[in-house]
Amino acid sequence: MIDNPYYSQEAHGPYELMNIGPLELEEGGSLANCTLAVATHGKLNAAKDNAILVPTWYSGTSKIWEQVYIGQGRALDPDKYFILVVNQIGNGLSTSPHNTPGAQGGANFPKVRIGDDVRAQHKLLTERFGIGTLALVVGGSMGAQQTYEWAVRYPDMVQRAAPIAGTAKNTDHDFLFAETLAETITSDPAFQDGNYAQSSDVAAGLRRHAKLWAVMGWSTEFYQQGRPAALGFPTLREFIDNFMVGYFAPMDPNDLLCMAWKWQRGDVSRHTGGDLKAALGRVKAKTFVMPVSHDMFFPPADCQAEQQLVPGSEFRPIGSIDGHLALFGTDPNFIAHLDTNLAELLATPA
Amino acid sequence: MIDNPYYSQEAHGPYELMNIGPLELEEGGSLANCTLAVATHGKLNAAKDNAILVPTWYSGTSKIWEQVYIGQGRALDPDKYFILVVNQIGNGLSTSPHNTPGAQGGANFPKVRIGDDVRAQHKLLTERFGIGTLALVVGGSMGAQQTYEWAVRYPDMVQRAAPIAGTAKNTDHDFLFAETLAETITSDPAFQDGNYAQSSDVAAGLRRHAKLWAVMGWSTEFYQQGRPAALGFPTLREFIDNFMVGYFAPMDPNDLLCMAWKWQRGDVSRHTGGDLKAALGRVKAKTFVMPVSHDMFFPPADCQAEQQLVPGSEFRPIGSIDGHLALFGTDPNFIAHLDTNLAELLATPA
Repeated sequence: MIDNPYYSQEAHGPYELMNIGPLELEEGGSLANCTLAVATHGKLNAAKDNAILVPTWYSGTSKIWEQVYIGQGRALDPDKYFILVVNQIGNGLSTSPHNTPGAQGGANFPKVRIGDDVRAQHKLLTERFGIGTLALVVGGSMGAQQTYEWAVRYPDMVQRAAPIAGTAKNTDHDFLFAETLAETITSDPAFQDGNYAQSSDVAAGLRRHAKLWAVMGWSTEFYQQGRPAALGFPTLREFIDNFMVGYFAPMDPNDLLCMAWKWQRGDVSRHTGGDLKAALGRVKAKTFVMPVSHDMFFPPADCQAEQQLVPGSEFRPIGSIDGHLALFGTDPNFIAHLDTNLAELLATPA
Repeated sequence: MIDNPYYSQEAHGPYELMNIGPLELEEGGSLANCTLAVATHGKLNAAKDNAILVPTWYSGTSKIWEQVYIGQGRALDPDKYFILVVNQIGNGLSTSPHNTPGAQGGANFPKVRIGDDVRAQHKLLTERFGIGTLALVVGGSMGAQQTYEWAVRYPDMVQRAAPIAGTAKNTDHDFLFAETLAETITSDPAFQDGNYAQSSDVAAGLRRHAKLWAVMGWSTEFYQQGRPAALGFPTLREFIDNFMVGYFAPMDPNDLLCMAWKWQRGDVSRHTGGDLKAALGRVKAKTFVMPVSHDMFFPPADCQAEQQLVPGSEFRPIGSIDGHLALFGTDPNFIAHLDTNLAELLATPA
């Protein structure tokens, strides 16, 4: 275990740690005490039909959903819904390499798949909360991967689905991008095959990782139109050092690699022998597919190709030159547009 | 000096090595014996008004212009034109880190700018060939940077200009991308601050460099539509290992870094105190600006913004899901479309 103050109630709370017991993993082995960090907003009603599940994205935690997406008068309104934001395995708050003691910790953390997260979340919702239906599953990026996995794996439980800036089956291009990200870290000699003493030892690798996100996470137009300055960073160097490196530097390298491996292999067609059409054909949820117009690695074209395989779904791209990282909430128009779509989706009869 | 058989007549010839003498550099210092590797096609006519100059791109040499772009019946027809393909400084055939002996060699090679290349080419054309007018300057990517530099620096000499998939002033996004590319190499411990014994020592860094090109050089659609298989690589791994790594692995790391540094800083507004409009306003060449539709780092929007500052120019984007590396000639439709544009441009009265 590595002590890392970034992953704390102070930085990301409030959340509750919920031990769901052992979790068998699709790649083999199991997590002995799978613990999910869960942030809840609102109350579960008596009928238990007002629950919304939000799985988290790469490097993200439940905190950004609280800060950017959830609030009174918003689509994700805690006065109406019981919203559970469940941190994905490996994100540093839930069971992750850095916080796992003993033989499974750190570099020896087992491989985890999107399906493992979704089964863990299912166990949590059904066994701990008695939830048998979800008004909505909504997530961005790796959260979209989990959203699709939910809708395909538990079609009778998911009434509505909102995958934002993500795909049901990861593309080759995206696989490569995640690989280059992982290699920014693993190529750092201080990474020592995952056996570093503290994440700051791997500062050089984490810095390259942050820069590569700066290239692929936003868009060419984001830079051309001066968005870094508009966000408060007068120079490119300040934007890189203070925003991008500032964001990623405190994170645990093994945690990031756990998520990157998972991200690379998200694929609902594992349920149907590789037949994506058959897998997405299982979806019963009313689904809004919402890519970001300028996303460089989950582009609208890739998302639309999948949307067309989801029965009754709608393609709802959202314009933003902030690209994929519009998910951070940097573009108020993106957030407003997303809110409108989510409100419309939630108003659609199940 | 490092012996590297990749940079040879066998692999890239025929070309002629032309020593233009000392070249003062914009960043200070000079190259004592600046030698340009030049491949020529066709004959200079008596009026000396049928010359076409082709500067090369990052990692490329004159060879690909011979293989893909030049030929009888094509726009770049050696029966009509005297075509000079001049390898850029640092590309391994012209004066470069790996082939420079003594104090300026290898890691100690001086910084070279786009403007240095263009002045070297100007000296070559005027002093050695007596060429005072160019029917066309055409180049892709860093070749487009040199094309713009030519049209701004020597407006009375350039009758027509065809910057393909490149910009006059490098963008912040592109600067960052080139920086992440450079860091794939410099982060390899075997790079040893440029003091490696042979390029194969830096194989790991060169491999990451090739993978990052695989992410940014093509497009998401290129992978989604199965283009690697269509190009003869049945699996993603074969495409990466055999095509991408196969292409970049034999190159010299210091040579690549010389070009990357130059690429990052291409900017014709250096002539006008940072005023891009004023710089591009100097252009007298009839100019076709030709970005590739799916280029991830020289996107059409960035190119069009510049085109609108070039008097009398035309915006001629060319569609290809092969993205930036359509320049390799992988998409016959791209090449055909480009040929048509170049023929039309050459038919336009000067």
